Amino acid sequence: MKATVTVSLKAAVLDPQGKAIAAALRDLGLDLVESARVGKVIELQLSEGADVESVRRQVETAADQLLANPVMEDWRVEIEA
Amino acid sequence: MKATVTVSLKAAVLDPQGKAIAAALRDLGLDLVESARVGKVIELQLSEGADVESVRRQVETAADQLLANPVMEDWRVEIEA
Repeated sequence: MKATVTVSLKAAVLDPQGKAIAAALRDLGLDLVESARVGKVIELQLSEGADVESVRRQVETAADQLLANPVMEDWRVEIEA
Repeated sequence: MKATVTVSLKAAVLDPQGKAIAAALRDLGLDLVESARVGKVIELQLSEGADVESVRRQVETAADQLLANPVMEDWRVEIEA
């Protein structure tokens, strides 16, 4: 089973790395870029056979407690059975 | 239009940050974690009205030339029209 946790900065938080990427992409000729935001993705390989709903709850707890900083970041969890 | 570029380390490349996360998750009680890999995700906000296929080609070029290091990293592009 695989779980993917995507962590992104909250919309209200400034993202200078994203700003730099947007500027670099426009310099590269990708004129239609309006803005860019950078986040991180954590791909978890999980042992098979566990109940998907219980796994989802555990991974959500982990995302909230360890993987994201809930003050500045949002997260979402996807489970692939 | 939105484009999401996900950049992840190639399978053959060591990921100490992922190893640390897997160990921390197991310490947190998430015993079914076998391994974790960390990547980054770049969300691009693009101006509307452009042709999806031409946008995809441009974003793929950007991913390959700027956003990922093709020696160590894989990337994939998703376009939401």
